[in-house]
Amino acid sequence: MRIQSMSNKTLNEVFKTWNAAGQGAEMYKTVSELYPICRSITGDGVRQSLRLLQRHIPLALHEVPSGTQVFDWVVPNEWNIRDAYIKNAKGEKVLDFQKSSLHVVNYSVPVRRKMRLPELREHLFTLPEKPDWIPYRTSYYKETWGFCLSQRELDNFKDEEYEVCIDSTLKPGNLTYGELRLPGATDDEVLISCHSCHPSLCNDNLSGMVVAANLARHLSGVSLRHSFRFVWIPGTIGAITWLALNEPVIPRIKHGLVLSCVGDGGRFTYKRSRRGNAEIDRAVEHVLRLSGKEFDLVDFSPSGYDERQYCSPGINLPVGCFMRTPNGKYPQYHTSADDLSFVTAPALAESLFELLKVIEALEANRSYVNLHPKCEPQLGRRGLYRQMGGTSNSGFEEALLWVLNFSDGKHSLLDIAERAKLEMRVLDEAAGALVDRQLLRIAD
Amino acid sequence: MRIQSMSNKTLNEVFKTWNAAGQGAEMYKTVSELYPICRSITGDGVRQSLRLLQRHIPLALHEVPSGTQVFDWVVPNEWNIRDAYIKNAKGEKVLDFQKSSLHVVNYSVPVRRKMRLPELREHLFTLPEKPDWIPYRTSYYKETWGFCLSQRELDNFKDEEYEVCIDSTLKPGNLTYGELRLPGATDDEVLISCHSCHPSLCNDNLSGMVVAANLARHLSGVSLRHSFRFVWIPGTIGAITWLALNEPVIPRIKHGLVLSCVGDGGRFTYKRSRRGNAEIDRAVEHVLRLSGKEFDLVDFSPSGYDERQYCSPGINLPVGCFMRTPNGKYPQYHTSADDLSFVTAPALAESLFELLKVIEALEANRSYVNLHPKCEPQLGRRGLYRQMGGTSNSGFEEALLWVLNFSDGKHSLLDIAERAKLEMRVLDEAAGALVDRQLLRIAD
Amino acid sequence: MRIQSMSNKTLNEVFKTWNAAGQGAEMYKTVSELYPICRSITGDGVRQSLRLLQRHIPLALHEVPSGTQVFDWVVPNEWNIRDAYIKNAKGEKVLDFQKSSLHVVNYSVPVRRKMRLPELREHLFTLPEKPDWIPYRTSYYKETWGFCLSQRELDNFKDEEYEVCIDSTLKPGNLTYGELRLPGATDDEVLISCHSCHPSLCNDNLSGMVVAANLARHLSGVSLRHSFRFVWIPGTIGAITWLALNEPVIPRIKHGLVLSCVGDGGRFTYKRSRRGNAEIDRAVEHVLRLSGKEFDLVDFSPSGYDERQYCSPGINLPVGCFMRTPNGKYPQYHTSADDLSFVTAPALAESLFELLKVIEALEANRSYVNLHPKCEPQLGRRGLYRQMGGTSNSGFEEALLWVLNFSDGKHSLLDIAERAKLEMRVLDEAAGALVDRQLLRIAD
Repeated sequence: MRIQSMSNKTLNEVFKTWNAAGQGAEMYKTVSELYPICRSITGDGVRQSLRLLQRHIPLALHEVPSGTQVFDWVVPNEWNIRDAYIKNAKGEKVLDFQKSSLHVVNYSVPVRRKMRLPELREHLFTLPEKPDWIPYRTSYYKETWGFCLSQRELDNFKDEEYEVCIDSTLKPGNLTYGELRLPGATDDEVLISCHSCHPSLCNDNLSGMVVAANLARHLSGVSLRHSFRFVWIPGTIGAITWLALNEPVIPRIKHGLVLSCVGDGGRFTYKRSRRGNAEIDRAVEHVLRLSGKEFDLVDFSPSGYDERQYCSPGINLPVGCFMRTPNGKYPQYHTSADDLSFVTAPALAESLFELLKVIEALEANRSYVNLHPKCEPQLGRRGLYRQMGGTSNSGFEEALLWVLNFSDGKHSLLDIAERAKLEMRVLDEAAGALVDRQLLRIAD
Repeated sequence: MRIQSMSNKTLNEVFKTWNAAGQGAEMYKTVSELYPICRSITGDGVRQSLRLLQRHIPLALHEVPSGTQVFDWVVPNEWNIRDAYIKNAKGEKVLDFQKSSLHVVNYSVPVRRKMRLPELREHLFTLPEKPDWIPYRTSYYKETWGFCLSQRELDNFKDEEYEVCIDSTLKPGNLTYGELRLPGATDDEVLISCHSCHPSLCNDNLSGMVVAANLARHLSGVSLRHSFRFVWIPGTIGAITWLALNEPVIPRIKHGLVLSCVGDGGRFTYKRSRRGNAEIDRAVEHVLRLSGKEFDLVDFSPSGYDERQYCSPGINLPVGCFMRTPNGKYPQYHTSADDLSFVTAPALAESLFELLKVIEALEANRSYVNLHPKCEPQLGRRGLYRQMGGTSNSGFEEALLWVLNFSDGKHSLLDIAERAKLEMRVLDEAAGALVDRQLLRIAD
Repeated sequence: MRIQSMSNKTLNEVFKTWNAAGQGAEMYKTVSELYPICRSITGDGVRQSLRLLQRHIPLALHEVPSGTQVFDWVVPNEWNIRDAYIKNAKGEKVLDFQKSSLHVVNYSVPVRRKMRLPELREHLFTLPEKPDWIPYRTSYYKETWGFCLSQRELDNFKDEEYEVCIDSTLKPGNLTYGELRLPGATDDEVLISCHSCHPSLCNDNLSGMVVAANLARHLSGVSLRHSFRFVWIPGTIGAITWLALNEPVIPRIKHGLVLSCVGDGGRFTYKRSRRGNAEIDRAVEHVLRLSGKEFDLVDFSPSGYDERQYCSPGINLPVGCFMRTPNGKYPQYHTSADDLSFVTAPALAESLFELLKVIEALEANRSYVNLHPKCEPQLGRRGLYRQMGGTSNSGFEEALLWVLNFSDGKHSLLDIAERAKLEMRVLDEAAGALVDRQLLRIAD
């Protein structure tokens, strides 16, 4: 059943009331609240994080039992952790999970033993080339345990006996993900997906989780043509699980974006969908091109985030990945340096703004038919053209001419926008004025 | 009925007797003669201008009555002007139409009144950022009146009483355009169109009017494959009128060019037809590429000259726009500074020359079929190849090999010219020699 | 009848035992041995050269009688030369064919006469702009005679009587070419062609003849999917003869390369086949791109080597031309300066190496079908993926993901290699591992 949006608020009004500073500050605050929580691909950290987002938007929590077959994979056991530490021979904590959720190899099995350094050393991970940073490591599918710490901390370890404690559980439970669907005028869906499984890492991907939530909040109550589906899911296994359990929904997804690393100060990077020239790919490129900012476009590759799953050959959805500095391209990536100082309120706000522009472009992208296709119609007598000749066309007049000339049943508004290098909003307004004067109609 | 050209003169002979200096001087002289006349979209100024061109070529004047419905438009009333001035309180003429046809807003209704400066000021147009130049302004479809003058002139106006006179008429009459058709061996037509409605502006578009006339003069009496149709028409309403009254001719137009701004010293600019890769687009690009000169190519946009109408979606003719510096891209555009000092004889001659090369390319562009397609035929025993080996191919030998290799029914001579970066004339001569030796035939 | 290769040696083993220095030295030695011989498009010089190559590989000599019709051409009379000289009035040899086979215009008819300088001068060819070099000249199809010499030598000629001797024969005989076919698992053939008609010129084309022979030697005894056909043929007439006599073979040729000028120190140049994006064109480009070396790609043109014939419109084979510095692009081309100092052992070895990489690419280029196309299959439990997460993918993991994602029945391994910028060998190994785990199958 299709639920119509209750509101008549337009997307344009969202832009009119746009407050970058306020938006940025609010999102940064949410990132800060999520930061300390130890998330993983399953477990209470995920639940706690999603519930925190529920303060802003009415997302639903879904629980998928361990052991569920999802395509070639099986939902794993649920992992939870209460505490972890290493104590030296004097009983001093030389590593304390309470200080950073990165200190434990994610999905470590429980351990509580004494051992000397050589044995312990096999379970310690550092970044020698970045001696102050703690690496992020996981071992979801091989049962093991380990600690991550800075090289400087490790350098202080002596060859003595250590007390090692990881107070975790790994047993049948559930995989948890969050979902929110905003129904639009049609069942054509736009999918916004972000991974929610990383522990204390801010850009990757608290930024994505929070920008997605705020995007959803802005679109709530706006009258939209597309329906919007937001998912907060653990990376890889979460996307696979969601796709396996939602196969009937897949054909309805007309456009999609994975959001990640949208909080740093770098320029935008858009990774195209596997199709390469899908409408979403062109809409994002067009918006970034008109943003006046430098940006990078990269072709699809099967490494990265959950676009790997959405763009697997048997799924092949038009889903790209919207980022600032991409995964692996900043030194702080997957380390404790991806912290609250690495993301900024203005960057979060700017990411959200450009995403709203992308959605504006998708919403406005229709095809029209010129009802007076032989020569230009006389716009002046319809009040659409300046009366004094000899001067240049205004931007709106340009838009009218572009829409009239290329509304031949073969070009959509986005096609025209790309050629004209004009904003979709201006073309949309021009098309509206022409439809009002019976010079244009929406194509069938 | 198809009239065959009476002459056997070839286009090649036009090039052999080419005299750039002479051509340039003659065209510049004609521009000078046309310059003082006050043209508009209708009226005696247009008639006088076209009759002046009749000294060089037998173009016909066509008259279309006011009120005639032409697609979405109606042919307007005819405008004529005898005189106009502003006199100050002392009775001195502080503005005199006899000094520049730009001084009156084109299509001003008659006025003869006294008024003080504040009221007059509403009807005065200047260019504050170019204080010595008079702007060009029109008001074809809203009945009003006005004067254009330099900012320096306006600065001398005091708050006193002025006598204002525009001695014009605006009443039912005709829209006048010029036309000349040169019949060729086939009814496939090449359309050359220029606007004839601008008053004392040299580059825009006396240059186009005169280059078109001289192009027609050169092609008269030349044996040509295509028929050529030249039109001198008022901008916008003229093109719309011509198209509306000549719909049966439209399908015969295989290639077309709008000529404008072809007299300034800037480099060539070719604005592609809406189709973007029509034969005319490729021919112009090829010719300009081989010219050794810098040039610009721009994609079609629905602003500019009458390509707007020829390339409207319901007409969609392969008509590009051949210019030097485009409209709006030089500061003198639509001002009194677009005068006789802005256009030069060499620029006019060079424009004409490149247009003749374009026509040479269109005329030569046929497809051929290699009758010995398996390996190269032995050209040496047919007198087409050097006897002494070890040295490089001559340009003609290269052309023979290109024509033979790509005359497979899929490539035209222009296709080959683009790949080979060879002049169409050389390929045409090579094709002729191969046809003579029964190595090649014209494709069906 | 299809002969299966007797050996199970793989191409990979050829690379594992690759010894650039040894290969280069051996090829340079063979070039040195071939250098003094006076080759032409027919005659004993060709036979002697091919027999010298038979020491390395079992190529067959084919003899085609003079007068045989081959498409538009006729196999010419056979030319042989024993000696030639010019003696001055004192009886001193001022030009001696024994010192350089370039001294006689190739295919000169016999002459034994006395004449004074003015008459002799008509038959002497020099390079005034390169006064120390002897030019290379031929006259295959016009019966004449002549000598080539350096300008400095000519400058010493006085106006006296000279004794002129060319002890040659031109009479019915045969055109000789060499051929070697290495049968592979299928009848799909790769053609390697080089011209064998140039006298004492090292880069053009002793380098090609010798690299082709060594390529054949390396592929002998290797288990290959394609059959390989090598031909050593006189330029133009040889390729035409071979094609005319082997028309039934033509459809089996799936890829081909003409080898020429592969011994100089310049960077690689690949001239694409007429088709432009044939598999061979893409394979060579991919290999050169990953070589890390600078290289040039040029589009097909109907000048050059025997790709002219293989790519004539009625043959149109996917045959490109693999070179270092192309014909005509180095000053030594077709002069005595194209000597043993112009080619080097390392350049010959490097050319051979890249050709082997091209063949590796052609051999590996298959299409596969992902048997688990919905989302990624779980590679970790199949031992194909690292267990510790948070770090980057290895190159082999990348290759696995690329192969899985694009093995959709539309992309071949070369398509994937181009997108991924990965070596064909890595992708081939990844595909092999995936086939072993039943995640992939070879496409039908």
